[in-house]
Amino acid sequence: MSQVYERVALIGLGLIASSMAHAMRRGGLAGEITGYARSAETRDVAREVGFCDRVCETAQEAVQGADLVVLCVPVGAMGAVAKEIAPALARGATVSDVGSVKRAVIEAVGPHLPEGVHFVPAHPMAGTEHSGPRSGFAELFDGKYTLIVPIEGSDRAAVKRLERLWTAMGATTDEMEADHHDLVCAVTSHAPHLIAYTMVGVADDLGRVTDSEVIKYSAAGFRDFTRIAASDPTMWRDVFLTNKDATLEILGRFTEELFALQRAIRTGDGDMLFEYFTRTRAIRRGIIEAGQDTDAPDFGRVKKG
Amino acid sequence: MSQVYERVALIGLGLIASSMAHAMRRGGLAGEITGYARSAETRDVAREVGFCDRVCETAQEAVQGADLVVLCVPVGAMGAVAKEIAPALARGATVSDVGSVKRAVIEAVGPHLPEGVHFVPAHPMAGTEHSGPRSGFAELFDGKYTLIVPIEGSDRAAVKRLERLWTAMGATTDEMEADHHDLVCAVTSHAPHLIAYTMVGVADDLGRVTDSEVIKYSAAGFRDFTRIAASDPTMWRDVFLTNKDATLEILGRFTEELFALQRAIRTGDGDMLFEYFTRTRAIRRGIIEAGQDTDAPDFGRVKKG
Repeated sequence: MSQVYERVALIGLGLIASSMAHAMRRGGLAGEITGYARSAETRDVAREVGFCDRVCETAQEAVQGADLVVLCVPVGAMGAVAKEIAPALARGATVSDVGSVKRAVIEAVGPHLPEGVHFVPAHPMAGTEHSGPRSGFAELFDGKYTLIVPIEGSDRAAVKRLERLWTAMGATTDEMEADHHDLVCAVTSHAPHLIAYTMVGVADDLGRVTDSEVIKYSAAGFRDFTRIAASDPTMWRDVFLTNKDATLEILGRFTEELFALQRAIRTGDGDMLFEYFTRTRAIRRGIIEAGQDTDAPDFGRVKKG
Repeated sequence: MSQVYERVALIGLGLIASSMAHAMRRGGLAGEITGYARSAETRDVAREVGFCDRVCETAQEAVQGADLVVLCVPVGAMGAVAKEIAPALARGATVSDVGSVKRAVIEAVGPHLPEGVHFVPAHPMAGTEHSGPRSGFAELFDGKYTLIVPIEGSDRAAVKRLERLWTAMGATTDEMEADHHDLVCAVTSHAPHLIAYTMVGVADDLGRVTDSEVIKYSAAGFRDFTRIAASDPTMWRDVFLTNKDATLEILGRFTEELFALQRAIRTGDGDMLFEYFTRTRAIRRGIIEAGQDTDAPDFGRVKKG
């Protein structure tokens, strides 16, 4: 592999930024990596783990002379960060982000960026339930998709260069329009997270079944929901507030469908249930065949002898 | 370990029965294991895999002389199987089952069992998304809970002996009353399965987002739902039809809570969302501390370098 950017500045130093730094180092993709986080504690941990060449005390200092700046903060903080760094951006630099919502980020960030700076929004479709600067690792993006969401008038050379970086970090890139991105993510990510949070909240809240019962007997299905319901609260609050329409649309469809299944249970319509449960198996097979999940039973949690 | 029963008959030879057979062999817990399945194909596969000492052509033949008979068929088939084997049961034998619902099984099986036979319902809270006689393995129950649900007048010695078997197969046993069992399982297993089936059905059904998009970008959360939505359709149809009231009650609570969160999204109540998402992290921690799930990111699907 070879260097794609001379200096990459990471603004925000959580799971995604630290994983990008590890992945860029693995491939020798950046001449220098600078970083900045608002919290002094995060900056200290980042220095200790050492995934950046320099951790700076201000965002402006971090972006100086960078030919790629990646905003890795919660979606709701993107606009303020863009405004802060704008005066320090080098002419010809590319500004990208890793936010889970694209239309709102484009609207919040775009207006702040000066003439001569290329804005290429992106979204790596990968993550874990862990967060913070210690949680990153080089392999996070391997075999996963990163969506590149060029805006009107995006410089093609800048787009292609960013795609080269993501590919070299292990990801496969696809280009997508912002509104379609937000709808696709509402289905594959945002609605599932809200539903998982809800199910875990209900279980926690139920007086007649104790938390200790919920925990002890969670292997019967429930525990699968608790992983994504342990994701970073700030990040997810911002996702729902900024991808409101698409998320509410999918949740509306979900509720409609749930009511149809509840009615089948209430009326004893076994054929409808059987047919529905048979159909959903095909999607699982598709995901395994596409290499997006393991076929090992229980996600490989159980070890066969 | 040492023998707990002289002859164990397994009626139905899917994931749970074959795992029990492997686990009993691992510990030398049964003198002989006989088996029966309604489908000739399943019987042939069971013979090929060889987890039973004898696979019989009728259920009656399999239970003859057994001191433990375990019904491992879908909940909706329990009553008919009990009626079929009743005349062939040995006096003093214990009849148990592994059904995910207990009140309905007690009502369907109990009336058929002759005087002098002990009925001790049970439910191992373990499983994978795979099914059939090839899917079993000895380690399935290790570290998981098996709920023992004695009925009124259950013989204490028979209960204790069955608990000894489950413990020796790797499980921890708890005793529980049937209705409470059904409510606990509605929370930890049945409602989560229906919700997962629904979310996968919605994604599959959405015209504006293609199946191929859903599959490619599933690592962002959705794929976690697809595992349990790939479970055996017959088994799950029967679960919902026979644990109707408790499942509908929990789904009602779930919908109420989901609506409250949707309202918070619509009105932009970030504090409510943040607080909710923070609370649900504690349950995940509890499950990991109780040894009921892995703390490895992404269920250990991703390998850190």
